Amino acid sequence: MPMLPEHDLWFSEIHEPSGTAQSWYLTAQRLDERRTPFQHIEIFATRTYGRLMSIDGCVMLTTRDNFLYHEMMTHPALFSHHNPQHAVIIGGGDCGTLKEVLRHKSIQSAVQIDIDEQVTRLAELYFPELCESNGDPRAQLLFEDGLAWIKGADDASADIIIIDSTDPVGPAEGLFGPGFVEQCFRVLRDGGLMVQQSESPLVHQQLIKGIRGNMIAAGFADLRTLGFPQPCYPSGWWSATLAMKGERSLDEFRYTDARNKSFTTLYYTPEVHQGTLREPPFLVKALT
Amino acid sequence: MPMLPEHDLWFSEIHEPSGTAQSWYLTAQRLDERRTPFQHIEIFATRTYGRLMSIDGCVMLTTRDNFLYHEMMTHPALFSHHNPQHAVIIGGGDCGTLKEVLRHKSIQSAVQIDIDEQVTRLAELYFPELCESNGDPRAQLLFEDGLAWIKGADDASADIIIIDSTDPVGPAEGLFGPGFVEQCFRVLRDGGLMVQQSESPLVHQQLIKGIRGNMIAAGFADLRTLGFPQPCYPSGWWSATLAMKGERSLDEFRYTDARNKSFTTLYYTPEVHQGTLREPPFLVKALT
Repeated sequence: MPMLPEHDLWFSEIHEPSGTAQSWYLTAQRLDERRTPFQHIEIFATRTYGRLMSIDGCVMLTTRDNFLYHEMMTHPALFSHHNPQHAVIIGGGDCGTLKEVLRHKSIQSAVQIDIDEQVTRLAELYFPELCESNGDPRAQLLFEDGLAWIKGADDASADIIIIDSTDPVGPAEGLFGPGFVEQCFRVLRDGGLMVQQSESPLVHQQLIKGIRGNMIAAGFADLRTLGFPQPCYPSGWWSATLAMKGERSLDEFRYTDARNKSFTTLYYTPEVHQGTLREPPFLVKALT
Repeated sequence: MPMLPEHDLWFSEIHEPSGTAQSWYLTAQRLDERRTPFQHIEIFATRTYGRLMSIDGCVMLTTRDNFLYHEMMTHPALFSHHNPQHAVIIGGGDCGTLKEVLRHKSIQSAVQIDIDEQVTRLAELYFPELCESNGDPRAQLLFEDGLAWIKGADDASADIIIIDSTDPVGPAEGLFGPGFVEQCFRVLRDGGLMVQQSESPLVHQQLIKGIRGNMIAAGFADLRTLGFPQPCYPSGWWSATLAMKGERSLDEFRYTDARNKSFTTLYYTPEVHQGTLREPPFLVKALT
């Protein structure tokens, strides 16, 4: 029975729901850590994936593959809106989502609300490439409770709301509840979109179903669960669920603008976007 | 430093090139094994992925997620050919690829050539759902060396050649060399396609570049590397590289036929197919 050699330096995350574990060779013991009122954040140096940030033992991101998640949590939604100006990011403390949002020239304001300032402080130290846009005059970084913040936000004040949270346990649990989704719907302007990270299409189908049910109940007219590869998360396959407020269809995204965009991406293309707009049959079946 | 608990029953595969390991909880010690002249084949029962077959310690397939690989190794190629009649599968001893090929009514013959009969014998016992079509009168199962077989095959005798091999070490090494690809080109009819499993877009870019270089050198006019999620393989992300003999473009696949196909798929759709035909920018850059 193959086992991990005990004498090697590994970071391992055991994922009970999928009965699997993923491990990375490390080049050193832990580089840094913070124990905050909310969670335990750790930074490791892997041999082949660059830096790795974990929260409460779960991998949040690595240097090598975070581009997949950050691009797919942002560009499909932003190119689905006809003219996104005001963006809100709940969670997202590593600032990678914020950076991608700010690449869109139409954006006039992007507010990031993460409950835990130490996530951002550690990202600035160990993932500086994700924090390059933190000084952008359009950006505002708040460290407070996202659920409380959204309750206090004005009606119809945002075009895009991105829920870039940890898993639905601990501090992020409220961000997966119906009350929060109703608030997002209220705060979005007509034609606005909500995006929620919705875990693995293979192993979290009931969670995705719940997220989509909340979105429909809140009044969103069209929704899609977009899958994408994400090696550092359980099953290596992740999803973002998009919900549109108003009568437009998510099929009608700005394909030509996405093709002629003024910035480069590593994974996102309009073809990738188009190809993920129809959920694969096994997922359609699981969600009905 | 999180480590796998020593007292639990795990199957772990360490993948040195990507500096990672993947592990599955098992419900029992090994179910079966064969030591053949070619390799060591083992069968395990996992808690959440069904059965798992490994060869020389590397995961080949699991019950739960093999549909991704088998559908993407077959349907994009078969719907890219205007009328595929004669298919050849080199490797593919678990018979999952054969089963998907035979779903296409135009297919008149499908020859599977795996060097190791014991792979098929174990698949019949532990993955019977993949072997359902082995008795199809159009199917022929041979257990011999694929490299020798292709050298003996007639010129212009096949429409589709699928290289469903293990990793390019051990018995499969020759299947990644230029001489073998030249033979495939010779054996294909005009308009025919070759498909090669080409490992992870994230961690095997040099290998993919080599495969594509061999294909171009052999005379193939158009080629594409199609990515797809594959949780049980390193990085959870895998690829099939398609090469077309003749002047047609791989962009011109039978979209309407794929939409109206007479069989069901779990992952493959014409939208997925379309969405993977353009490699993501990071891969394009790595391959140039």
